[in-house]
Amino acid sequence: MNSSDGLQTPLLLLDQSILLRNLERMRGHVRALGAQLRPHAKTAKSIEVLRRALGEGPRAIAVSTLREAEYFVRNGVRDILYAVGIVPAKLPQVADLIRRGADLTVVLDSLEAASAVERFAAAAAIEVPVLIEVDVDGHRSGVEPASQLLIALGHQLAAARGKVRLRGVMTHAGSSYECRTIASLQDVAELERAQATLAANRLRAGGVSVDVVSVGSTPTATFARRLDGVTEVRAGVYMFNDLVMAGLGVCTLEDIALSVLVTVIGHQPRRGWIITDGGWTALSRDRGTASQPLDQGYGVVRDVLGGSLPEDLIVVSTNQEHGILARRDGQSPQLERYPIGSQLRILPNHACATASQHACYHVVEHSSVKPLECWPRFSGW
Amino acid sequence: MNSSDGLQTPLLLLDQSILLRNLERMRGHVRALGAQLRPHAKTAKSIEVLRRALGEGPRAIAVSTLREAEYFVRNGVRDILYAVGIVPAKLPQVADLIRRGADLTVVLDSLEAASAVERFAAAAAIEVPVLIEVDVDGHRSGVEPASQLLIALGHQLAAARGKVRLRGVMTHAGSSYECRTIASLQDVAELERAQATLAANRLRAGGVSVDVVSVGSTPTATFARRLDGVTEVRAGVYMFNDLVMAGLGVCTLEDIALSVLVTVIGHQPRRGWIITDGGWTALSRDRGTASQPLDQGYGVVRDVLGGSLPEDLIVVSTNQEHGILARRDGQSPQLERYPIGSQLRILPNHACATASQHACYHVVEHSSVKPLECWPRFSGW
Repeated sequence: MNSSDGLQTPLLLLDQSILLRNLERMRGHVRALGAQLRPHAKTAKSIEVLRRALGEGPRAIAVSTLREAEYFVRNGVRDILYAVGIVPAKLPQVADLIRRGADLTVVLDSLEAASAVERFAAAAAIEVPVLIEVDVDGHRSGVEPASQLLIALGHQLAAARGKVRLRGVMTHAGSSYECRTIASLQDVAELERAQATLAANRLRAGGVSVDVVSVGSTPTATFARRLDGVTEVRAGVYMFNDLVMAGLGVCTLEDIALSVLVTVIGHQPRRGWIITDGGWTALSRDRGTASQPLDQGYGVVRDVLGGSLPEDLIVVSTNQEHGILARRDGQSPQLERYPIGSQLRILPNHACATASQHACYHVVEHSSVKPLECWPRFSGW
Repeated sequence: MNSSDGLQTPLLLLDQSILLRNLERMRGHVRALGAQLRPHAKTAKSIEVLRRALGEGPRAIAVSTLREAEYFVRNGVRDILYAVGIVPAKLPQVADLIRRGADLTVVLDSLEAASAVERFAAAAAIEVPVLIEVDVDGHRSGVEPASQLLIALGHQLAAARGKVRLRGVMTHAGSSYECRTIASLQDVAELERAQATLAANRLRAGGVSVDVVSVGSTPTATFARRLDGVTEVRAGVYMFNDLVMAGLGVCTLEDIALSVLVTVIGHQPRRGWIITDGGWTALSRDRGTASQPLDQGYGVVRDVLGGSLPEDLIVVSTNQEHGILARRDGQSPQLERYPIGSQLRILPNHACATASQHACYHVVEHSSVKPLECWPRFSGW
């Protein structure tokens, strides 16, 4: 059955065959470069998706919230990297997870946070695994690989053995999202690798043991040509892909597994607009392609089965429960092609943001809208 | 107690005294102009908030999804306007609500949708209350008040009595969000009133009975100076207010009832950045102030109790679970004022979008972060 009769929209669809292809491609690529893939759960927030992402590999993931950690521990994943800088108020929850058997690693990038973890661990009589966050590209958090602070932090954490178990370093080259050419993506991937291993080697030279060198983002993971010195790669968006990834050259539109099914609720013939029930609550407010060469508005419009339309339509504007579709070239679309009640799919700018607006994935076969299964997902902290 | 010790962040705070003041102000203003306020539930999605918004007035609200309608019917609200264009697939749910005693009105703006409602109602043996959506400013949906289509639609719906109960017209002057002066806001408010009453009077002149003339948006409701001919005003954001409303002159920062409590997780001294755990999952990706004269980034930073800081900080950038704060003027903030683990509040760009990222309101007294109550809210369809 390919009909969508009776499906209430807006609805988040996940094309199973594209998902599985994306998962296999990244697994194969990272394996070929000699590192381990640690799938990041922040995009999917679903055990069904993560189980498929892990495949036959080790059950090791990264998370962005402690709620994700709780959920995946409950669902049988033990080895978890909480990849957002730890703060004192979150340590009791970390301790609770460790006591329940989780192999949970936290990250930090300051002497202040290191002291807080050490004091807490001493009082709680636990040992907290830690990675030092390294800043390879001025993107966000982390200590500089060439800094004295890195060495000071390494020594402080190594000396706290028994309370803190320093495992190594991690970084995220977020600037990869701003690249405009494949060559520059390859350069950022190599910068990420080189700076992370520089940090690891400087710590080792200072007498600090480093077992883990963790790097990653979907663009750098995709375009890395070597991973010498790296032990693991983290990535999350690659599972679904999105228009931002397509704009970077990481994937094509045919590799985007996620879409939002919407219904046409009206027309504005004078303006050439098609009005749908897919507003920003369904698509998110993300405008990640606005700074790319090809601005995709709030998303690219496909037919109800995910195929190309004869006209190039994008979502030009959204209100809370309204999406306005128009032709990219400003010409009027043939409105009779999109009668009231008919359905279309919207490919998302940013899979993490769009998925987070929904409570479950309606899993479909390729070129079908008949939901096979509903995989729950969650948001919040 | 004013301490936030132990509060897990990010956390959505609702200042009860600001909320109540906002509610009373709008109620008094609309009452003074001789119309009825029909609070729009789409911003708050909480019976606790709506109960206070209704006060002693009639229990009549507007909603943006049928899930909201279901929820408010369950919570004792009968008179509900579903203010998004109806489509055939949603009519069974409408019928179900009507059969359960809801006085649910739908809106439409085409002969096609009118015929679909008529056919459905005949088959289901119910009468569906309808408003014709009118387009007063080219913003989104609706038929033009001066058009022949309006009259044709009025006649078709009036002739379907028994299946359709045509109650009147509704409009939303969404272009009010693009105004830059109070005078232009007053003009748009008057345009909304004049065009809606023009549509009503043209229908009446054509022999069609019109009882309801429904207009509204928070900016036009705030700046309306007369409402002659209007029976009801819909507004939703005024309950909480936000930076977009402040940018329009609808409110001041001191009238914003909603904020997100975040924790400092790191610093980047060389760049003058403070890193927090309040990313776009907590704040939303909304950048509604980007097109206003004062761009507020992803939000304005206040101290933990909601007061002004000595430095003018905004959220300059967000990732999924990271917010980057910096001084608006580009100077470096005094980082020792914001130690790791300390907490701050972020005032939101767009209350609807920020609230929709959270599962409940942590209700606090003014200048306190001690949650008094937790009011659940919902998202989805």
